[in-house]
Amino acid sequence: MAAIVGPKNIVTDADAMVPYLKEWRDLFRGKAQAIVRPGSTAEVAELVKLAARTGTRLVPQGGNTGLVGGQIPIAEGREIILSLQRMDKIRAIDADSDTMTVEAGLTLQKAQAAAEGAGRLFPLSLASEGSCTIGGNLSTNAGGTAVLAYGNARELCMGLEVVLADGRIWNGLRQLRKDNTGYDLKNLFIGAEGTLGIITAAVLKLFPLPAARATAFLAVPSPEAALALLNTAKAGAGGTLTTFELMPRIGVDFVLRHASGARDPLSEPSPWYVLMEVSSQSTTGLDEAVEAFLGEALEQGLVTDAALAGSLTQRADFWKLREMLSEVQTYEGGSIKHDVSVPLHAVPEFLARATAAVEAMVPGCRVVPFGHLGDGNIHYNVSQPVGADKAAFIAGWSAMNQAVHAIVAELHGSISAEHGIGRLKRDLLPGVKDPVELALMKTLKATLDPQGILNPGAVLAM
Amino acid sequence: MAAIVGPKNIVTDADAMVPYLKEWRDLFRGKAQAIVRPGSTAEVAELVKLAARTGTRLVPQGGNTGLVGGQIPIAEGREIILSLQRMDKIRAIDADSDTMTVEAGLTLQKAQAAAEGAGRLFPLSLASEGSCTIGGNLSTNAGGTAVLAYGNARELCMGLEVVLADGRIWNGLRQLRKDNTGYDLKNLFIGAEGTLGIITAAVLKLFPLPAARATAFLAVPSPEAALALLNTAKAGAGGTLTTFELMPRIGVDFVLRHASGARDPLSEPSPWYVLMEVSSQSTTGLDEAVEAFLGEALEQGLVTDAALAGSLTQRADFWKLREMLSEVQTYEGGSIKHDVSVPLHAVPEFLARATAAVEAMVPGCRVVPFGHLGDGNIHYNVSQPVGADKAAFIAGWSAMNQAVHAIVAELHGSISAEHGIGRLKRDLLPGVKDPVELALMKTLKATLDPQGILNPGAVLAM
Repeated sequence: MAAIVGPKNIVTDADAMVPYLKEWRDLFRGKAQAIVRPGSTAEVAELVKLAARTGTRLVPQGGNTGLVGGQIPIAEGREIILSLQRMDKIRAIDADSDTMTVEAGLTLQKAQAAAEGAGRLFPLSLASEGSCTIGGNLSTNAGGTAVLAYGNARELCMGLEVVLADGRIWNGLRQLRKDNTGYDLKNLFIGAEGTLGIITAAVLKLFPLPAARATAFLAVPSPEAALALLNTAKAGAGGTLTTFELMPRIGVDFVLRHASGARDPLSEPSPWYVLMEVSSQSTTGLDEAVEAFLGEALEQGLVTDAALAGSLTQRADFWKLREMLSEVQTYEGGSIKHDVSVPLHAVPEFLARATAAVEAMVPGCRVVPFGHLGDGNIHYNVSQPVGADKAAFIAGWSAMNQAVHAIVAELHGSISAEHGIGRLKRDLLPGVKDPVELALMKTLKATLDPQGILNPGAVLAM
Repeated sequence: MAAIVGPKNIVTDADAMVPYLKEWRDLFRGKAQAIVRPGSTAEVAELVKLAARTGTRLVPQGGNTGLVGGQIPIAEGREIILSLQRMDKIRAIDADSDTMTVEAGLTLQKAQAAAEGAGRLFPLSLASEGSCTIGGNLSTNAGGTAVLAYGNARELCMGLEVVLADGRIWNGLRQLRKDNTGYDLKNLFIGAEGTLGIITAAVLKLFPLPAARATAFLAVPSPEAALALLNTAKAGAGGTLTTFELMPRIGVDFVLRHASGARDPLSEPSPWYVLMEVSSQSTTGLDEAVEAFLGEALEQGLVTDAALAGSLTQRADFWKLREMLSEVQTYEGGSIKHDVSVPLHAVPEFLARATAAVEAMVPGCRVVPFGHLGDGNIHYNVSQPVGADKAAFIAGWSAMNQAVHAIVAELHGSISAEHGIGRLKRDLLPGVKDPVELALMKTLKATLDPQGILNPGAVLAM
């Protein structure tokens, strides 16, 4: 491998390997023989050919920000991590076609900046955007806060370049909005977490920058009211609804307690809040339209109080309440996480049933469910009771997951809405998947990676 | 098979089989042993199991409106057509979740009407919507006139139910906007033209009905101006750009000559026209915003004249000029067709080069390129010279296709933007596809349909 990438692009020193092997929340440490850092698609292809010839297991890695251990080998340490970070070129920006062709190792933030430099929007937006990479975003079909209007990473990709398990390169870097010439291979690799092929480059969709944007922080009486508000906002908030995030009072309390400079935009506390953003391609009239919409929502009782951001600073303040929600939970002791989705209509029922279940399991636990209501995707996090033993609470992680996931299953939902399966949720899959679907997945894996050298143990058991 | 579906749901009488075997433009006649008409997914599964056991070849068919012969067997007649037309139930409409679950045989028009009945929009819109079916729309990844804002059929589908080649039923009828639990099987069956499995039902995405809509018929000096107009309209026409259709003067002339009641909305002829539609979720201000946008476009010379529809009747008149374009070509003698796409930036170059090529091949031929400029998708149709021999002109079909497709290939385009491959374009595929991609397609076909009983000879050679 050193002969392919050059000796300085192989890392075997234990300390130097740590950044590639350490999970960022320190949930676990991985093990690997080495890290190899190719600089081109041709080098990736040569590496995979060599791996295929020698039966060497490869774990592709981007920014190492994944939340389910898809990017870190945790088995006996025979794996080699194939880091795409050196492949960070922007190959082309074609503003007339609203496309951008980039390599897999480019960070999301640099992709966003490049689009903006060309007067366009690349809408994918995640907490980890400073370090996560486009290859990782596509391999995990990343979601984030702009899915409601623009879709998941899958919907933002027009074409791919992929190195297959035998080292062949599939060049599917198409810039076409319509192309019906055969099977859709692209979507097979998107969301496959590097187990079917290694994404080396992609054509991304660009959008016009919004001409105007209105951001509102809203007090809502209940999840039911939030859902009704969502449906009226989609139809008539005066523009394109781009954000609709649900937050409970306790989450806002956590942020106000732990995040410096955070403040409550509203004078009275409310059991629930919605952060709503509406975009428009018209420079005029949006604020007035959103104000009129909110006036009606107040009259109907869907909203009990509202603040509309009057400046970019105020907008940033509203967003801070949402963005700090994950971090502040760490200051409140142990937190058991779920990344679930259900059909939109079922979100209120899910919240009620899951909360009854976990409160019965751990009396005094503090439920902090928040997230992308517009996508039916709730980060259903549960903080330990005040003063309880953290380790004892965390020891109940699996049991609580099981109880929550059982309710998700009854409501025809998903146990991983946007984070993927990786290694952490792999063994949950047989319990929640249709057996025919799981069998099809295994058939595809055996067909496209018969030796099992690509990210073994992720998504499917070896 | 009669034991499975009941004798009255098997058609073997030659006359009664004609509607299933006749291609609607009468380009060819198919041959089949029989037509079988199952009434449920369970019956489809039993039929496929029987076919797998006996090596019987099945050709799935919806409304028989396909343009590339994907739905009609043309080989020696050993095939049985499996018509999904009896499976036309709407299983559920969930307006709160913006989804609708329907069976494959439901016509697109009925799906649109059901959505509208629930106060929602199902945006897929095609010339054949009165008879084409959802199963066919998904199996061909249908496009149409609303792709610009809402995407192809692929983007409008959230889940599928599919009968596999061995008769197993995959129930993937999910209503989830986010679900990252394993490989994306859905997109493997969408656009596969029934060669990998038989789609029996689908969950479709619904959207809010637009609160306002503005429709403009615009004179533009050139394709370059139309492209520049497209990019400014995406960014700032005052709403969501939902339609952007290019038409040449000769096409408008054909419609004015042959379609009763058609009239030119503008006083002076222009070499090119654009039919543009902008939608808004605000009830006020759209017409004013579009007028302001067009005023600027006139000043910049991107538009030379403009008519904004003042009534639904006027809107229908504008649309008629676009919708009649295909039909009126038949009254002008022979017409050689191409359904191509190129990256948006390359549309003007494609039009210039293709026109030079075909005019050199057939002096006096009349080029009538029109279609979905917003998607880079041009129906590049060429009418015979006035007074020429139709049969002699049509005899040059393949040669002209070859010349046009060569230009498409140089511009990294597609030879089938929205119609699919079927049987008519199958043998063109090896000439235009990356060999790695074609090999992957064959691998997938061999894996998912090892006996080759599902729509044999469509997309890939047997």
